[in-house]
Amino acid sequence: MPWSATEVRLAQRPTGYPDDSTWEIATREVPDPDDGQIVVQVEYISIDPAMRGWLNDVRSYVPPVKIGAVMRAFGAGTVVSSQHPDFTEGDKVTGLFGVRDFALSSGKGVEKVEADAVSLPTHLGALGMPGMTAYFGLFEIGRPEPTDTVLVSAAAGAVGSVVVQLAKARGCRVIGVAGGPEKCVWLRELGCDEVIDHREGNLTKQVRAAAPDGVNVYFDNVGGDMLDAALANLAVGARIVICGAISAYNAEQLPEGPRRYMSLLVFRASMSGFVVTDYEARYLEAVTEIMRMISDGSLQARETVRTGGVAAFPEALLDIYRGTNTGKLVLKV
Amino acid sequence: MPWSATEVRLAQRPTGYPDDSTWEIATREVPDPDDGQIVVQVEYISIDPAMRGWLNDVRSYVPPVKIGAVMRAFGAGTVVSSQHPDFTEGDKVTGLFGVRDFALSSGKGVEKVEADAVSLPTHLGALGMPGMTAYFGLFEIGRPEPTDTVLVSAAAGAVGSVVVQLAKARGCRVIGVAGGPEKCVWLRELGCDEVIDHREGNLTKQVRAAAPDGVNVYFDNVGGDMLDAALANLAVGARIVICGAISAYNAEQLPEGPRRYMSLLVFRASMSGFVVTDYEARYLEAVTEIMRMISDGSLQARETVRTGGVAAFPEALLDIYRGTNTGKLVLKV
Repeated sequence: MPWSATEVRLAQRPTGYPDDSTWEIATREVPDPDDGQIVVQVEYISIDPAMRGWLNDVRSYVPPVKIGAVMRAFGAGTVVSSQHPDFTEGDKVTGLFGVRDFALSSGKGVEKVEADAVSLPTHLGALGMPGMTAYFGLFEIGRPEPTDTVLVSAAAGAVGSVVVQLAKARGCRVIGVAGGPEKCVWLRELGCDEVIDHREGNLTKQVRAAAPDGVNVYFDNVGGDMLDAALANLAVGARIVICGAISAYNAEQLPEGPRRYMSLLVFRASMSGFVVTDYEARYLEAVTEIMRMISDGSLQARETVRTGGVAAFPEALLDIYRGTNTGKLVLKV
Repeated sequence: MPWSATEVRLAQRPTGYPDDSTWEIATREVPDPDDGQIVVQVEYISIDPAMRGWLNDVRSYVPPVKIGAVMRAFGAGTVVSSQHPDFTEGDKVTGLFGVRDFALSSGKGVEKVEADAVSLPTHLGALGMPGMTAYFGLFEIGRPEPTDTVLVSAAAGAVGSVVVQLAKARGCRVIGVAGGPEKCVWLRELGCDEVIDHREGNLTKQVRAAAPDGVNVYFDNVGGDMLDAALANLAVGARIVICGAISAYNAEQLPEGPRRYMSLLVFRASMSGFVVTDYEARYLEAVTEIMRMISDGSLQARETVRTGGVAAFPEALLDIYRGTNTGKLVLKV
């Protein structure tokens, strides 16, 4: 039996924030799978800050989403039909299924997941790309020592909240930055030694007060003023991990860069970017470690589940830039 | 016999470019040396881009020059009186003697140099701090492989010209950036595979044309638009060495930062600062290698010698920001 899939396609490239003209919501017949194919019923769609970048027609670490194509997205769901030797009906899976409720797939990049102990949204969060990003960004680029002070921005987000907890487990002093009292309370629960509410006044002064001896590792998810505040408060030999710059993703013009970058010289520091898929061959190591920490209670995986189905995707995407989520933002189909 | 020294003191901290109100020129009696002291007649004063930063009352890698104190400067000259066991009259030496013609010194940080084979100005240039900066910045931070493309800004300057030649000796493809045809001709003589005149149009396009496969190592002496042009043209895994930012040193307000810093993420690249004095224990290694290259003709050490004596220091310092020098700028006393 074929399925009728609802999907969100890119209608035109946005300038600034995406709006109604950016998207087209359409339906498509999904046929029965051919040999080597599966059909997945998508139950959760991952909403990621990086999505905005995928809409720009520029050279980057992945090609841009094409006009007319289904919006790229990770998702989690159930195999509802399989002609693929590795999958059977009922398997719980994650993969790049796009923003739609039924997806035909060759199985490439599709992972079977254990959905009894850990929920599907967690497989898109702490055990998914955000968790991998946290793990390899922190340990491979940030390289924290147990005596280090680690500063994390967007610390109540999908990546940041895992970074905070991995750094605490490593023995570091951890400073989490988030917006609003609710997130800040959660950051204390996660073990942050200091919490900065970026809505509460001068960032540079707040970082200085929280890290009087300087920051050894800054895990940057936001860019903008926060990056400058960190640069102004480095310790000698500091490492800045450039993971994202959510403050800039919807800017209509390329925003100003970090004015205080010459702090890199003064503090003999480095600022490095990375792309998580470069570490794909080692994902199992990270999944195993994060799973172990979830199991023994030393890592909290939290998700904000938005309802409304596929058609709610355009609003859900704006939510991530508004910072309304705590932990991983997923859209329930 | 005591000496009458002419010296340049910091009268007040400048905003923007230093001017007449910045400096006071005065004389001072230099007494005969006490036990453990020497008196040096300074013959050449090193004019360095970093000097402008030493005038600012901010936390940096060295303390600021105090108001009323003699301006900090490297110099080279001759011991004219010694009560120090390691020095005798007639020794040629380099050290932080300040902007003056006679200096009393404890001998701390003073190096005896061989002035027969190599001139005193070269001991302030390719064999001095600029040469050390080039060597350790390139090899420790830039870490070029023989197959790499190395981009160098201010490539006809004291540091840049040594970086160019060390990178060529390592087998790299080298792109030098300088201002004006005379410097560009010299860069070709030094072996640059491509030369960019930064006065000749769009920097990003010029870098792209010279490095179509991207830049593996960018040695940055200037900051500003040049840094953005490099960021826009990185190869995967590139290293940016932050050695200086001469374009910004006299700005009245902190200039904009590198807008294209998110290229660090796209290209999995890093941007790192360093301070040459951290490598002091290894200077002999660098001096030996650069001396060997000078001797066998594989490294050209060039200096622009400005005349006018100590009193010409204020103008000589402005010269370095005007870029009038080719190679190392020194002031002849």
